[in-house]
Amino acid sequence: MNDDKREPIKESPNGIVETRYYDFDSLTLESGEMLSPVKLAYETYGSLNEAKDNAILLCHALSGDAHAAGYHTGDKKPGWWEFIIGPGRAFDTNKYFVVCSNVIGSCNGSTGPASINPKTGKKYGMDFPAVSIRDMVNAQAKLMDYLGIDRLFSVAGGSMGGMQVLEWAYSYPERVKTAIPIATTFRHSAQQIAFNVLGRIAIQDDPAWKKGEYSESEAALLRPIGALQPASGLGLARMIGHITYMSDEAMERKFGREVRKLDSSGKPIDSVFEVESFLRHQGVTFVKRFDANTYIYITKALDNFNLGSNQELTEHFTGSRTKFLVISYSHDWIYPAKQSKEIVKVLKYSWADVTYCEILQDYGHDAFLIEHAEQGVLVSNFLENVRKGE
Amino acid sequence: MNDDKREPIKESPNGIVETRYYDFDSLTLESGEMLSPVKLAYETYGSLNEAKDNAILLCHALSGDAHAAGYHTGDKKPGWWEFIIGPGRAFDTNKYFVVCSNVIGSCNGSTGPASINPKTGKKYGMDFPAVSIRDMVNAQAKLMDYLGIDRLFSVAGGSMGGMQVLEWAYSYPERVKTAIPIATTFRHSAQQIAFNVLGRIAIQDDPAWKKGEYSESEAALLRPIGALQPASGLGLARMIGHITYMSDEAMERKFGREVRKLDSSGKPIDSVFEVESFLRHQGVTFVKRFDANTYIYITKALDNFNLGSNQELTEHFTGSRTKFLVISYSHDWIYPAKQSKEIVKVLKYSWADVTYCEILQDYGHDAFLIEHAEQGVLVSNFLENVRKGE
Repeated sequence: MNDDKREPIKESPNGIVETRYYDFDSLTLESGEMLSPVKLAYETYGSLNEAKDNAILLCHALSGDAHAAGYHTGDKKPGWWEFIIGPGRAFDTNKYFVVCSNVIGSCNGSTGPASINPKTGKKYGMDFPAVSIRDMVNAQAKLMDYLGIDRLFSVAGGSMGGMQVLEWAYSYPERVKTAIPIATTFRHSAQQIAFNVLGRIAIQDDPAWKKGEYSESEAALLRPIGALQPASGLGLARMIGHITYMSDEAMERKFGREVRKLDSSGKPIDSVFEVESFLRHQGVTFVKRFDANTYIYITKALDNFNLGSNQELTEHFTGSRTKFLVISYSHDWIYPAKQSKEIVKVLKYSWADVTYCEILQDYGHDAFLIEHAEQGVLVSNFLENVRKGE
Repeated sequence: MNDDKREPIKESPNGIVETRYYDFDSLTLESGEMLSPVKLAYETYGSLNEAKDNAILLCHALSGDAHAAGYHTGDKKPGWWEFIIGPGRAFDTNKYFVVCSNVIGSCNGSTGPASINPKTGKKYGMDFPAVSIRDMVNAQAKLMDYLGIDRLFSVAGGSMGGMQVLEWAYSYPERVKTAIPIATTFRHSAQQIAFNVLGRIAIQDDPAWKKGEYSESEAALLRPIGALQPASGLGLARMIGHITYMSDEAMERKFGREVRKLDSSGKPIDSVFEVESFLRHQGVTFVKRFDANTYIYITKALDNFNLGSNQELTEHFTGSRTKFLVISYSHDWIYPAKQSKEIVKVLKYSWADVTYCEILQDYGHDAFLIEHAEQGVLVSNFLENVRKGE
């Protein structure tokens, strides 16, 4: 997620929101290991109706968090999907109870590698067990149990969020009335894996990474994220990722070959391309808010995600009553439209109820995080059609 | 250039070749600085005819060298463009005198950042003056003077080689009868710059880089390239580059999601994706043969290359008698076909004689370095048409 995308909106109809936490005893992971205890950070917008059938779960991307809408006290920017959540917006809080939770394995409030290992009193670091997209979804399912939500009216999300949407529809078909996977895939291609590989190498080759033990000391635990991070490695990983989040066209329009003169005591000493300044800024900003080991764990979850072969998936989804809206973006080259079309094909072969739209928007992969009318209208009309058809 | 592409060819019609060196006193660079003395490494294949009008200059890409064809004694792989050079091949050594020189600023025999600075007795490192594509071409022009070649029958090359081809046609129109720019551009886009920026950051963030002074000691000068390099930074830069040299489709076909089990004392301890093994191998191999500071200098030359606006170029090329064959590759996403089409458009607006072919070949950018029939036929027929028309 581009850190610059959360545009200041003076007044949010979602108002001031607070992150809440659901603590539970344990979660058996796909690997067989047991994680205990487990904390899930989550936020909600709107109200659960009496029938408890109006809940929508939003799933975030790689570096996202539970804060999808509204403002935290003192913050200058609203949640990451503010423009599509709220009264009268696509995820209409006058109608729906919207929930967003930070995935397990993350560092934004839920249990992950940056959390304290109760057995040692130190951060887990690389001792954290491997997590998968399925584990993230299983944890979310426990949160839904806790909130009293048996069946979700919808599950929606882009990129890694879209993988969770697919996993929900796969693992909990009876709990998912509708599913909206955006700019996502059933499984990473070699190229998608390759970019994540380079991010992990960048972190692990940074001497400050110290095999993941960069913040094992007691003192370090008191510092904010970023204080002892392998900053250059994590920053570079973020920059590598960031190139893939934008299209060639969007980069060209935004930066072209513009050069920025660097000033030092009034004397211009050097010049850099604007795109370099932008990328460096993205790297520095990211290091302040995201944990390096977590980046390794989450990108591995992405790369290892594979719901099955198309043949297996076709058999599995046959008989599914979930209604799907699959969305891709025309200029997304890292999660290209062909991957969304493959999802559609498998679902069609399964006789599933699936609608597909490719949105012509030249920003690239991160287009789903940028305010534009079309995504909202597609989501809104899709949800409303299902609601009216009930 | 992919280090694995030089397939063993038992017998080369080009036989055993030797790199030669042309030493000259000085070269005034585009920056105004003077480089002195200057050494250019070069190789030749075939014979210069009496009229001295059958010479073809081949220009190499980012990490290339003068060794375009034949074998060096003891080598297992031939030069980087072996399959297209030789008797009966597209650059037919029965007809043409083929020359390839290592660009200045490089580390493969010509004067560059890894050369000894005569003023200090140590390697230039980051004290080397900035070099440009124009500087590379001006040095090649001096080599042509030395070889007695007034006018080149053709200049050809892909990627950075293609930039040199365009620069030759721009700066020395009377010396270039035909020009073959392949998979190249008049100027880097923001995305192309961005990938190079990340490569430079990877190197410069590696503590072993030491502001470019990783091999300043006398002892270091005696060691081969790679001994004291910022290996992880340069390796990562290479891996970043390598992802861009292949198409999504080629990576998928070659690696897919295949996993390699890593063995340690008979016990499988970990597994990695095949694409990771491949990229790591590319990084390790590259560090042994290429200098980190040089990588910084050459990628900057690439990013700074800009022959002028399309308007300026249209005016400049109007009246040019050079015949152009512009080639692009269908699945090249880092130097996309649209950039070649822009070259063609400018040349057409200039009333220049230009032929354009997009080759349907799914390998990606490095396709021009891989043996396939179409490129050879296009080049061969283009050259032969001009030769017959004389």
